[in-house]
Amino acid sequence: MILHHHPFLAPCRFVRLLLAEHAIDTELVLEPFWEERPAFVAVNPGLTLPMAFDGDRGPLIGAGVVMEYVDERYGELRAGSRLMPSDPFHRAEVRRLVDWFLVKFEDEVASPFVTERILKVEIPSRRGGGAPDSTLLRSARQNALGHMHYLGALTTARPWLAGDALTFADLAAAAALSVVDYLGETPWDADPAVKAWYQTIKSRPAFRALLSDKARLVAPARHYADLDF
Amino acid sequence: MILHHHPFLAPCRFVRLLLAEHAIDTELVLEPFWEERPAFVAVNPGLTLPMAFDGDRGPLIGAGVVMEYVDERYGELRAGSRLMPSDPFHRAEVRRLVDWFLVKFEDEVASPFVTERILKVEIPSRRGGGAPDSTLLRSARQNALGHMHYLGALTTARPWLAGDALTFADLAAAAALSVVDYLGETPWDADPAVKAWYQTIKSRPAFRALLSDKARLVAPARHYADLDF
Repeated sequence: MILHHHPFLAPCRFVRLLLAEHAIDTELVLEPFWEERPAFVAVNPGLTLPMAFDGDRGPLIGAGVVMEYVDERYGELRAGSRLMPSDPFHRAEVRRLVDWFLVKFEDEVASPFVTERILKVEIPSRRGGGAPDSTLLRSARQNALGHMHYLGALTTARPWLAGDALTFADLAAAAALSVVDYLGETPWDADPAVKAWYQTIKSRPAFRALLSDKARLVAPARHYADLDF
Repeated sequence: MILHHHPFLAPCRFVRLLLAEHAIDTELVLEPFWEERPAFVAVNPGLTLPMAFDGDRGPLIGAGVVMEYVDERYGELRAGSRLMPSDPFHRAEVRRLVDWFLVKFEDEVASPFVTERILKVEIPSRRGGGAPDSTLLRSARQNALGHMHYLGALTTARPWLAGDALTFADLAAAAALSVVDYLGETPWDADPAVKAWYQTIKSRPAFRALLSDKARLVAPARHYADLDF
């Protein structure tokens, strides 16, 4: 598959993880969405990332769309360890959590951090770049604590976020945390159960590529790529 | 099924439409989400609406979650006119459009209108109620025009939003437009093709209940319930 992405958008990282978990060969295309490249706008007027193509067909636009597609088309490659469960209510819980981390956590935590601390540094000022807004960063820090407590409650109650097995929900949450962690903004002390759960996901081979991502102008937190942090 | 909803949130209207299209008996429970009822928060910490229960199982939280559930569980009730197509790329397009209208249009148009003009009138000031913010209304009006042009391009190119048949995408878009139309804020003149498409959906029996919704303190626009507007 071909994946148009940006390395510091959590929904893109989620899709990279799930493609790697399915062992699907992927060519990554870096998409500087703020440039509104005409060829990109023409197929994707909302400038939504990620956007994927499979063979000569596509586009598949948006993380949830790619997730459902990959599960429908390639889920059987993971017979016995499919990332979307078969019970309809269990599926609903996985989808709820994926939305939680890729929409709610994204809006309240990941996107403000990444926008203020990474993207605005790279984006020219006429496209919205500039100095970070410290009010937004403060509120993202506050929100991060609430989310860590919620994640703590989930990881304490269950081995994986949606139950007894790894699902798309774990990949979404880990992808979302990982961009925050690059910036050293994850309040790990808030809950030890979250740290243990994240350590397990971070050690999976599918995660490796994310740990070597580098922002052009912002270095990763010292512990970012450590499996034992 | 039991549906916890608010009549002026587009994602809730979308689910009412799709349940009616599947002829699923539904008991509606009005959920004043801003009151953060303890019993509601306990099962739904994000205060997300809609939330559904099917028999004694649930909750199904979020419009996309309920949509996938109903299609998986009851889609065969509509053999030959299923609202989710069978081709995987066609499914991806339906899901993209559902997200477009229930997330993007919602954030840029429907939610500001409804929040400023309906909810803030009903919600006590200590919970965020108050006078509408005219800057937000102005920008929602501006955004509405862009969305009407996009809808116009889609409805001109295809009989239904995602292709040759009615799908969940049409229900999502019509649900989103309907709350804006209640307030008389739909710029119908922007594109006649959109009006013709909306008229067709509005005439479906599933739509009828939405047309008799009344906000407690805000009357509908004069043409709101007219099938010939």
